[in-house]
Amino acid sequence: MAASSRTALVVSAHSADFVWRAGGAIALHARRGYRVTIVCLSYGERGESAKLWRRPGMTLDAIKQARKAEAEKAAAILGAAVEFWDVGDYPMRIGDETVFRLADTYRALRPEFVLTHSLKDPYNFDHPLAAHVAQEARIVAQAHGHRPEVPVIGAPPVYFFEPHQTEQCEWRPDILLDISEVWEQKRRAIEAMEGQEHLWEYYTRVALQRGVQAARNSDRKVTHGEGYARLFPQVTDALG
Amino acid sequence: MAASSRTALVVSAHSADFVWRAGGAIALHARRGYRVTIVCLSYGERGESAKLWRRPGMTLDAIKQARKAEAEKAAAILGAAVEFWDVGDYPMRIGDETVFRLADTYRALRPEFVLTHSLKDPYNFDHPLAAHVAQEARIVAQAHGHRPEVPVIGAPPVYFFEPHQTEQCEWRPDILLDISEVWEQKRRAIEAMEGQEHLWEYYTRVALQRGVQAARNSDRKVTHGEGYARLFPQVTDALG
Amino acid sequence: MAASSRTALVVSAHSADFVWRAGGAIALHARRGYRVTIVCLSYGERGESAKLWRRPGMTLDAIKQARKAEAEKAAAILGAAVEFWDVGDYPMRIGDETVFRLADTYRALRPEFVLTHSLKDPYNFDHPLAAHVAQEARIVAQAHGHRPEVPVIGAPPVYFFEPHQTEQCEWRPDILLDISEVWEQKRRAIEAMEGQEHLWEYYTRVALQRGVQAARNSDRKVTHGEGYARLFPQVTDALG
Amino acid sequence: MAASSRTALVVSAHSADFVWRAGGAIALHARRGYRVTIVCLSYGERGESAKLWRRPGMTLDAIKQARKAEAEKAAAILGAAVEFWDVGDYPMRIGDETVFRLADTYRALRPEFVLTHSLKDPYNFDHPLAAHVAQEARIVAQAHGHRPEVPVIGAPPVYFFEPHQTEQCEWRPDILLDISEVWEQKRRAIEAMEGQEHLWEYYTRVALQRGVQAARNSDRKVTHGEGYARLFPQVTDALG
Amino acid sequence: MAASSRTALVVSAHSADFVWRAGGAIALHARRGYRVTIVCLSYGERGESAKLWRRPGMTLDAIKQARKAEAEKAAAILGAAVEFWDVGDYPMRIGDETVFRLADTYRALRPEFVLTHSLKDPYNFDHPLAAHVAQEARIVAQAHGHRPEVPVIGAPPVYFFEPHQTEQCEWRPDILLDISEVWEQKRRAIEAMEGQEHLWEYYTRVALQRGVQAARNSDRKVTHGEGYARLFPQVTDALG
Amino acid sequence: MAASSRTALVVSAHSADFVWRAGGAIALHARRGYRVTIVCLSYGERGESAKLWRRPGMTLDAIKQARKAEAEKAAAILGAAVEFWDVGDYPMRIGDETVFRLADTYRALRPEFVLTHSLKDPYNFDHPLAAHVAQEARIVAQAHGHRPEVPVIGAPPVYFFEPHQTEQCEWRPDILLDISEVWEQKRRAIEAMEGQEHLWEYYTRVALQRGVQAARNSDRKVTHGEGYARLFPQVTDALG
Repeated sequence: MAASSRTALVVSAHSADFVWRAGGAIALHARRGYRVTIVCLSYGERGESAKLWRRPGMTLDAIKQARKAEAEKAAAILGAAVEFWDVGDYPMRIGDETVFRLADTYRALRPEFVLTHSLKDPYNFDHPLAAHVAQEARIVAQAHGHRPEVPVIGAPPVYFFEPHQTEQCEWRPDILLDISEVWEQKRRAIEAMEGQEHLWEYYTRVALQRGVQAARNSDRKVTHGEGYARLFPQVTDALG
Repeated sequence: MAASSRTALVVSAHSADFVWRAGGAIALHARRGYRVTIVCLSYGERGESAKLWRRPGMTLDAIKQARKAEAEKAAAILGAAVEFWDVGDYPMRIGDETVFRLADTYRALRPEFVLTHSLKDPYNFDHPLAAHVAQEARIVAQAHGHRPEVPVIGAPPVYFFEPHQTEQCEWRPDILLDISEVWEQKRRAIEAMEGQEHLWEYYTRVALQRGVQAARNSDRKVTHGEGYARLFPQVTDALG
Repeated sequence: MAASSRTALVVSAHSADFVWRAGGAIALHARRGYRVTIVCLSYGERGESAKLWRRPGMTLDAIKQARKAEAEKAAAILGAAVEFWDVGDYPMRIGDETVFRLADTYRALRPEFVLTHSLKDPYNFDHPLAAHVAQEARIVAQAHGHRPEVPVIGAPPVYFFEPHQTEQCEWRPDILLDISEVWEQKRRAIEAMEGQEHLWEYYTRVALQRGVQAARNSDRKVTHGEGYARLFPQVTDALG
Repeated sequence: MAASSRTALVVSAHSADFVWRAGGAIALHARRGYRVTIVCLSYGERGESAKLWRRPGMTLDAIKQARKAEAEKAAAILGAAVEFWDVGDYPMRIGDETVFRLADTYRALRPEFVLTHSLKDPYNFDHPLAAHVAQEARIVAQAHGHRPEVPVIGAPPVYFFEPHQTEQCEWRPDILLDISEVWEQKRRAIEAMEGQEHLWEYYTRVALQRGVQAARNSDRKVTHGEGYARLFPQVTDALG
Repeated sequence: MAASSRTALVVSAHSADFVWRAGGAIALHARRGYRVTIVCLSYGERGESAKLWRRPGMTLDAIKQARKAEAEKAAAILGAAVEFWDVGDYPMRIGDETVFRLADTYRALRPEFVLTHSLKDPYNFDHPLAAHVAQEARIVAQAHGHRPEVPVIGAPPVYFFEPHQTEQCEWRPDILLDISEVWEQKRRAIEAMEGQEHLWEYYTRVALQRGVQAARNSDRKVTHGEGYARLFPQVTDALG
Repeated sequence: MAASSRTALVVSAHSADFVWRAGGAIALHARRGYRVTIVCLSYGERGESAKLWRRPGMTLDAIKQARKAEAEKAAAILGAAVEFWDVGDYPMRIGDETVFRLADTYRALRPEFVLTHSLKDPYNFDHPLAAHVAQEARIVAQAHGHRPEVPVIGAPPVYFFEPHQTEQCEWRPDILLDISEVWEQKRRAIEAMEGQEHLWEYYTRVALQRGVQAARNSDRKVTHGEGYARLFPQVTDALG
């Protein structure tokens, strides 16, 4: 890894989550030179591909391929690398080998920050599980006794992106990220998700609402926004 | 107000609160050129001057003068201006004239941020009241119909500083502010509060604990810290 | 009151709140024969009329008249009666005479349900105050010793409509009301609020998002929705 | 399944839970023609059969048989079907085969609503686990890729019935169900649980308290009630 | 005050609250030699005397007298002194003179503990107000500058007794007080409240439920209990 | 077990946790004749031994031995017995055999109270897991059908000791334990933990802060304290 290169890690339960929920943050930081890596734990092949399953003759493998192609296209638009770990979905199950693989990813990337799902979601159990494993692998990567020959990581902040129905998930935005300058990119990435067209306008409206709120909570001009909750306190030397 | 000048506002219930709870933030921003204004709603003459009341022949006025002298000395050490509004304490009562006076102060200063007490404190009712009036005056100062001839303010963030027993006050640090570089100044300001010597070591330990935690939540070297809770979401265009 | 007539009460802090937040519920129940009465505690003349204040030569009275005309037009579109109590705003202050007047309104109307603001709102202190007085007057109206010559009311449920930034207000929708059939009416009422055109699209998007969520939480087709939080448990004899 | 038939599903950790906690709802809906199916994940043979274990010569199998007989008698009194899945208790452990079996049950029944335990209970870990599996199986049953040849279910509401010590379980009644008309049936079902006679009066008093509260929160006459918490928002087109 | 005498203070919004909610604690500590003083801020004459208001020819004064007689009888049965401050109810309003009077009462009694209402109650606004004034007066009584000629008090613990619908009031029992030995006395005090006979059985059942729970949370035999929430942490030198 | 002997159980995730977090309570009760047993589920060999891992040539086994020696020394200073179960750490995984072993320990010891970690900790997943298993094993030990030949236990209270960053762990002290008389012992035990010298002063300051707070919440003289949260309500027959 070049010393000049800053990195970020996105842990996404299904192959499209990173687009709706963090596409703006990914594009924004990629544009500033961050190397952003997205780990899709599954393709969302069983639980988030309803439209594809309605096509005649569909198989699990065919759906995975379709989902993969969409996600790769979206990641390319956003300027990020994407990996597919194919652990299965609905229900997602995470074994220790996945925890350790993710811990190794933390150590290899040494991310400046991590984006993942909210801690609760009564509509979707895979999302909180992805958040859980993102946290647990981070803790393992900090442990000196885990593969002691590889340097431990520090304490990258973890941000939880916005779930589909925020209030039911006890999720509150601690950060309103101004994604105005990359909105057009995010919208194109959204349109790459052909299998979930019913969500395009929904998440476009989310971006507009968060944009209005960002403007209202600051003196900035903002047209589009993304909300994030913090897991840990922010460490800073300036409040202004 | 010169265009180059950035400002901050501190709303303190009693004349010493700003020292223990926000002395580091004040000194840090003063050092960077902020004009910081501290409003002490009261002197804490009835409820936070136990040591002074033990002196023979003490009167309310004499205590107010002693408290004022201490607070002025501390403010000078920290590099901030201080005002004493003398509204009374234990119990503090806030009339509309105080709300409007504070709204006018907001408009005159146009602060980049505001520091005040936590929203709850079962040990102290003046503290949450000061936080309430700091919020309400901010809202009035945003209203176009309040003294329409004076420009409204934008949306300065509000930070709640640390109460004496955090967990009982439902206060959680969203920010750990690195005050290492101004700690020596804060300690001198603390020592200016001669009437409350029993708190010197307590708040020195608070600074040390928050320093350790700040280091643990980041990759910074931090020796002393201050904790703040956010009232509103942070608006930013960078997560890194 | 004729036995056939069912009533509902809406307690709105400012003269436009009922439109954005409860216009659908008002139109829906009006269409079903409810006599809906809206009490606007103030016109929002100081704090929610920024656009009007930018017009040259504006006075407080002129703004009140403009706001009144808009709200009357909106109420007529929705099919409801509206009263303006003109208690002032930013900051709103409620004296006992207002509490008793509202208690008398409860007894005169005997509403089947009550709509008002959320209990918390760090952006707006008038809204929670309106909710507080709506609750307190309801309790007074239940007291046998308050004007004992007038029959007490029962226990009408209270619903809190959606604030501008839900998560910061600790507001969660317990009910998603399907307002699809009256959406066109609500949109016309929204457009009657000429002084707050910047909110038209915002609250249109809110209605669309709540519509999607209502469909997702049920087997109904819903295009537009409104969210409500319950203050009291629902009493029913059917869960289906 | 006949088109005319409406169904409901009850997921009970141990074989008696459904009686104390949901007997009224079961009887009420059975009386109205619902086909109610109760899944008892275990018999409560280890942890909720203290009285039976005090009998000399008892074995695990004998206790299971006694518990089964009691629960079948109670279900018959309430008018519901009951299944015993015998997964074990204290501690209960749920494998994926149980999740999938329950998902298939959802699809076979297509329930209009689901009753299960509260999400937290520091006195009893089997109860929250039963609630967890009831939720997870519902989510799996909604996934198009899970057994794609069987139609997915919609979004039946989930209600959490009352735990033994509500406040310690962070359980709050969002619904007070009027079970007055079936109380006598519920009491007979309670008396069928011979192994837990110490709970008969406790849950009779619970029903009386919830009845008083239901009357107080409405204008209905109610003598006996049951409390339920909602997991999801209610979708409706009427607030009255 | 004799050195041997220990005291306790009960702050009750209406003249009967102390009976239902704290009768057991009062009798228990009176029996052990505590001098217990009950302050009834009002008689509950407007809002908690429905049955009396139904009698023909009733006046506010007559109801106050009836309520006073009942409360005096109950206090005598429990072994406590009772004062009636007659500040009015529904809505209760507390002026500073009442806060200072209560602060003086704290200093005169120097109670070992204080009992009052819960901090929230959506059904009753007088109750939380009584709790608020009980807290605020305690804080004033601790202030050295308040009537400096009278010794300040220490830090007596404050316990919140059980509201009518606990879960809606966010009240949770931190303490289950075993009142078995004084139950018969409490029941007689309850029966002294002739104007609220509809509550006799309700609160008898509350005592039985709390008794069962107390037994379940300990190895004690308990038949009747009372629940209390703590405002402050318990200070002790033993966990056993 | 001699009839005269009272016991307590401490469930510690890693071999040093009991020292920082509960050393005072252990020494205090040991001094009063309690037989205190500490179960260290792991040595903290991977995740809490950073300083040891920096030594050249270290192996997992060598670190376990070093950690064991330190913990045994600390336990001896505090007057308690200590067991090492060596289940591994970072991440800790608990199988049923460990749950049952701990349930058997409960039955063998019959502790009057149990000390363990907080229920949440975003910095450390082993700690909440230890708390979970401490609770679950307690519930199993209460079940009559678990090894029916061994008597069940009653309901020993469970206390959660203080995590490293309390507010982020949603931990609040319900009890402030006065450990002044055993502080010197606790400090010596702390100094036995040579591998974590960076924590010595941190936890000394914690003890001092809790001591100040204990004095402030009571009329006791306290120099050093420990905080505990309660899982269950306290059962008592005295509030004074």
